[in-house]
Amino acid sequence: MKNTFGQNVSVTLFGESHGAGIGAVLDGLAPGIPVDEAFIADQLSLRRPSGKTGTARREQDRFEILSGVFEGRTTGTPLCITIPNENVSSKDYAATRRLARPGHADYTANCKYHGFEDYRGGGHFSGRITAALVAAGAVAITALRNKGIVIGTHVRRCAGVPDRDFEDLAADIEKLNAMTFAVLDDAAAAEMKAKIEAAGQAGDSVGGVLETAVIGVPAGVGEPWFDTVEGVLAHGLFSIPAVKGVQFGAAFDMADALGSQYNDPFAVEAGRIVTKTNHNGGVNGGITNGMPIVFRCMVKPTPSIFKEQETVDFFSREDARLQIRGRHDPAIIHRARVVVDSVTALTLCDLLAGRYGTDYLGGAAT
Amino acid sequence: MKNTFGQNVSVTLFGESHGAGIGAVLDGLAPGIPVDEAFIADQLSLRRPSGKTGTARREQDRFEILSGVFEGRTTGTPLCITIPNENVSSKDYAATRRLARPGHADYTANCKYHGFEDYRGGGHFSGRITAALVAAGAVAITALRNKGIVIGTHVRRCAGVPDRDFEDLAADIEKLNAMTFAVLDDAAAAEMKAKIEAAGQAGDSVGGVLETAVIGVPAGVGEPWFDTVEGVLAHGLFSIPAVKGVQFGAAFDMADALGSQYNDPFAVEAGRIVTKTNHNGGVNGGITNGMPIVFRCMVKPTPSIFKEQETVDFFSREDARLQIRGRHDPAIIHRARVVVDSVTALTLCDLLAGRYGTDYLGGAAT
Amino acid sequence: MKNTFGQNVSVTLFGESHGAGIGAVLDGLAPGIPVDEAFIADQLSLRRPSGKTGTARREQDRFEILSGVFEGRTTGTPLCITIPNENVSSKDYAATRRLARPGHADYTANCKYHGFEDYRGGGHFSGRITAALVAAGAVAITALRNKGIVIGTHVRRCAGVPDRDFEDLAADIEKLNAMTFAVLDDAAAAEMKAKIEAAGQAGDSVGGVLETAVIGVPAGVGEPWFDTVEGVLAHGLFSIPAVKGVQFGAAFDMADALGSQYNDPFAVEAGRIVTKTNHNGGVNGGITNGMPIVFRCMVKPTPSIFKEQETVDFFSREDARLQIRGRHDPAIIHRARVVVDSVTALTLCDLLAGRYGTDYLGGAAT
Amino acid sequence: MKNTFGQNVSVTLFGESHGAGIGAVLDGLAPGIPVDEAFIADQLSLRRPSGKTGTARREQDRFEILSGVFEGRTTGTPLCITIPNENVSSKDYAATRRLARPGHADYTANCKYHGFEDYRGGGHFSGRITAALVAAGAVAITALRNKGIVIGTHVRRCAGVPDRDFEDLAADIEKLNAMTFAVLDDAAAAEMKAKIEAAGQAGDSVGGVLETAVIGVPAGVGEPWFDTVEGVLAHGLFSIPAVKGVQFGAAFDMADALGSQYNDPFAVEAGRIVTKTNHNGGVNGGITNGMPIVFRCMVKPTPSIFKEQETVDFFSREDARLQIRGRHDPAIIHRARVVVDSVTALTLCDLLAGRYGTDYLGGAAT
Repeated sequence: MKNTFGQNVSVTLFGESHGAGIGAVLDGLAPGIPVDEAFIADQLSLRRPSGKTGTARREQDRFEILSGVFEGRTTGTPLCITIPNENVSSKDYAATRRLARPGHADYTANCKYHGFEDYRGGGHFSGRITAALVAAGAVAITALRNKGIVIGTHVRRCAGVPDRDFEDLAADIEKLNAMTFAVLDDAAAAEMKAKIEAAGQAGDSVGGVLETAVIGVPAGVGEPWFDTVEGVLAHGLFSIPAVKGVQFGAAFDMADALGSQYNDPFAVEAGRIVTKTNHNGGVNGGITNGMPIVFRCMVKPTPSIFKEQETVDFFSREDARLQIRGRHDPAIIHRARVVVDSVTALTLCDLLAGRYGTDYLGGAAT
Repeated sequence: MKNTFGQNVSVTLFGESHGAGIGAVLDGLAPGIPVDEAFIADQLSLRRPSGKTGTARREQDRFEILSGVFEGRTTGTPLCITIPNENVSSKDYAATRRLARPGHADYTANCKYHGFEDYRGGGHFSGRITAALVAAGAVAITALRNKGIVIGTHVRRCAGVPDRDFEDLAADIEKLNAMTFAVLDDAAAAEMKAKIEAAGQAGDSVGGVLETAVIGVPAGVGEPWFDTVEGVLAHGLFSIPAVKGVQFGAAFDMADALGSQYNDPFAVEAGRIVTKTNHNGGVNGGITNGMPIVFRCMVKPTPSIFKEQETVDFFSREDARLQIRGRHDPAIIHRARVVVDSVTALTLCDLLAGRYGTDYLGGAAT
Repeated sequence: MKNTFGQNVSVTLFGESHGAGIGAVLDGLAPGIPVDEAFIADQLSLRRPSGKTGTARREQDRFEILSGVFEGRTTGTPLCITIPNENVSSKDYAATRRLARPGHADYTANCKYHGFEDYRGGGHFSGRITAALVAAGAVAITALRNKGIVIGTHVRRCAGVPDRDFEDLAADIEKLNAMTFAVLDDAAAAEMKAKIEAAGQAGDSVGGVLETAVIGVPAGVGEPWFDTVEGVLAHGLFSIPAVKGVQFGAAFDMADALGSQYNDPFAVEAGRIVTKTNHNGGVNGGITNGMPIVFRCMVKPTPSIFKEQETVDFFSREDARLQIRGRHDPAIIHRARVVVDSVTALTLCDLLAGRYGTDYLGGAAT
Repeated sequence: MKNTFGQNVSVTLFGESHGAGIGAVLDGLAPGIPVDEAFIADQLSLRRPSGKTGTARREQDRFEILSGVFEGRTTGTPLCITIPNENVSSKDYAATRRLARPGHADYTANCKYHGFEDYRGGGHFSGRITAALVAAGAVAITALRNKGIVIGTHVRRCAGVPDRDFEDLAADIEKLNAMTFAVLDDAAAAEMKAKIEAAGQAGDSVGGVLETAVIGVPAGVGEPWFDTVEGVLAHGLFSIPAVKGVQFGAAFDMADALGSQYNDPFAVEAGRIVTKTNHNGGVNGGITNGMPIVFRCMVKPTPSIFKEQETVDFFSREDARLQIRGRHDPAIIHRARVVVDSVTALTLCDLLAGRYGTDYLGGAAT
């Protein structure tokens, strides 16, 4: 079940960077969810590379929905979206076919697939595959929004520059979902962009931290062992290329603290049980407590850099030097955020369908 | 498949803190793995509470292997280990039944199970359930060791006190596996213990960071989507009570860095392809590269503290105050490390069996 | 996930015939289902061997519920039932350890487990393991009954003797569930018993066909691909030792017929959509149509016979002759029916929980 | 995981009869398996409807491999095959949209999907979806053949006319795989075709029994509980529209027999352990014994008939009468056989990859 994720609502990914196309099959979604192709296109545009950071024109990726949608709504049967690969040029890759790019999967792919892998452009490991994830995620995001569940992610930190903390979550989420470069503080955004461009000019790259909040998930979702909300989300999030860490709530801030500082006290507010703080990120014992789910993903600097690097020729098993050419962004963190939103939405649809049944997110639910 | 984890080698957990007993079923293990009951007992002793931090007598938990072992070796059929609950006193719990302990799962359990949960001592959410995980993990650890794969975890940080970094990994792992309080630097260990005791005297608690290294895993294990080594390990690790973050390799240190600083260059050493640094923690593109797998778990301060706390009565939905009584450790991080080792071992057995088949880890392999 | 069956409600089996004990873990059941130990004991008695066919004293197997039940109801966490193996005598088995009993799993177990298997009494392949399945199934049967879903199985055919067809299903099911030797027609029952005893006296054995009906399952449960009601039920039913065929509805009777004879016409009855006949056994396109689910299991003659048989010594790989000794029933079909009921109930709980959510079968559902 | 089948090698199906297209994602296959598009086309032609029974021109379905194949071999990453739907005319369907065709899934689809289903031509329930299964299966068949494992299916019985039994299995399988109308005895074939045409002229339909044999599967594959070879195969086979029964080996012939007649005696032949008969169909205790795997599928008469039928309008919930129009074959059994072969191949690839690891069936295995 390698390339399939989810138990009740599942997504299956396929495709290589330079093959005929990529895509996703989204299965188990409730019937009756509206499918808005313009919204899918918008979401896809958020992860596309841009000429200058953050100034992406919302150009459309071509995609096709092959199945699972009828008269504008999900049917409840598998929804397959494909995205053709266009203008792929493979000629650049033969030269470096046997040189493992540091920080990339070239060498591990070869260990796993014994040379049968499609090595061009990273093949099945390419960040391009996340386009399919985003397309599928867009449907999940719509389904959740119709139940009052919304997701927002900001670049909490990039190249050492911090964004401001979440404040009014509902407003912040709405704001973020209208932004291309999702940073809450304008000055921080400008500084991040400057640092990204500087890194690019130096042939280098930067990373950072994404922070995500989800509001509206009911209390009581998740399992103590092993399908904790944290565990299932992390399982999906670590698939996103460059994500090397996932933390919930106050996370590593708690490591040096005292229990009395980070136990979120319960209180009754307007008849509803809440916690006064949310250091645990909306999850206790693996199960949602009705507070916002909050987590962070650490995104490493993109490994494609233009400085000459030491590596090996993994066919001859000799040391070698590598100079990457072509076009690569010095940062992908601002583009990764829509992938994080998508994985989060798909995971939550799965958890909710498992908890409340297959109709919960659909048109027949009441 | 809630309480079952793993696809080819799987572990199923059961039990409540104050029920008749707890246990685990370990399925899919190769036939012929030696099962050493003394080693299981030793591992169990590492997670037991101790009178004074780090001075645990290696007292035995009683456990029984009901199935799956014959003449001292695994049969290849499910191995069930049960651990009876002894000397459980339930009387303390009725008084606080309706008061949600902050930072605990009392309230979320009630949301999920509607009051039918066994609330005594945390029920199925109790840290005690990890004893079953440790017992099962001990078998997995043995299986891996017989293939040259060893795992070691140290308390990298506790109550703000750092341990030294890993140095000679093989030696450090061996050292850690002989220690009760797994800290590599003696002075750091002493300081941590002092802080833990001080927190305990103040009715408070502390947390920290565990760091784990695994050596000997072959290159080429794991999947690009979605069963990355990172994702599958994190899925399991987040089940461990109090773990709120998981990071691989240099992890959050990479967030503020440049790509050129953290791309691990490849090199050939004695005919073997290695990376000169291991900032990616032994995993590229979700797949092992043959270097040590290294990751950290953030362990929040144990939520059981003896200061009075604000909470709610979740039956009457009114504000309340809670004073926890009884015996609770001011730190669990040093006891959690054997649980981390166990989850790691179980997860790796699963990934390896999926990659190399059901006999790989057993007596018939080679 | 070998010894675990089910996606939302799952059962995990463990144990060997002559080990310390056997058992099952039942996970994903709704909280609040009443657990009636007397009913579990009754169900267990239906599969126990009896001195004379059909005259089993309802003696109790000892069993223990280790977890998942609190104050008489399911908690929603894993329910583990263990059944100790008592009075097991292993001495008989060493002599025939290397002689594959024809029709049994001795040889295939050795191929799979390489000699590490617990060979005594069939080990993990023993029919005894079904006791754990029956114990777990009893809880599932109760859960379903509380939702108006009832299951009944009769020996439709044994040793060539046919029982009468189902007539008034609700009455027949009720009648069957009160019987030890579940045959609707008394004369047929007497004739079957006579043939079973004759076979036994000849050192031989007989088989037959079980037919099961389930009423009360709502329309709309199951999947077109691949989790059809037929496919999922069959998956489970084929685990029952000696079951070699599963058919739905009129089944093989349809093979020689015309479409016009076996297309079940729809009709409206009291405002409810029904089919006038039920040749399709309550399932169209893999999904329940609201009519009774009806299927048959073919049970081969028990392979333990007392005639001398040709076989091989699979250690020396030489031809050999085998004379089975000890106590073995000349028929197991009448005992297998409670196993069929149990697998059916567990499978339906899984399908229903997947469809309607985790609370559907429990005490909190309304 | 509804539309995904298989644990280590899995197939995911998508598509509706009258949507944009159908397809399959095949995941977990070893890298290095040759992919022969002409063979895929040939297999597809075997399930296409034909002008006259058994005289199908081997016309090509258009299909496209989007991913997972590079330089003519599997890469080890997901292989997606899509087949566009061409010349679909939807106008016929609106008229009968609310009339449940007896024996079809129209009504149950509506119960499950609440009217959001794509009802045209059976939608996701259409036999057309099996084209995707056949395309994926063709790759699995090639992979197995390269390991010496071959599969053959004949129409053992159709419209009451029996084919001869399997004799020389290897020769029979080879013969069947070269035939369009897979009946071993020519006279039987002619008689079947005559009966099929007669049924068609009467506006009626016929069914029958398919029998499949697989040779070359090593001993020791499968699980005792619950992933028996029988159970896993049946799970997949029941997805094939019109299959209502699955039996292994001598199957229902054993129901009336004595154990002494059907226990397959073991013997040593040329140093290899075999059974002298194969009444158990190559499986003991759920595990292969090295003999041919033999099973039968009962195929009900195709429910699309041209006689007027009683039904209901499931919107108004009133009785109605239905006259099906258009083109429908009076038999599908001869076309279903390639679907059976495909499901069998996919299932065996899954079982073998689980047993022997991900490389077993591929180009890197030795």
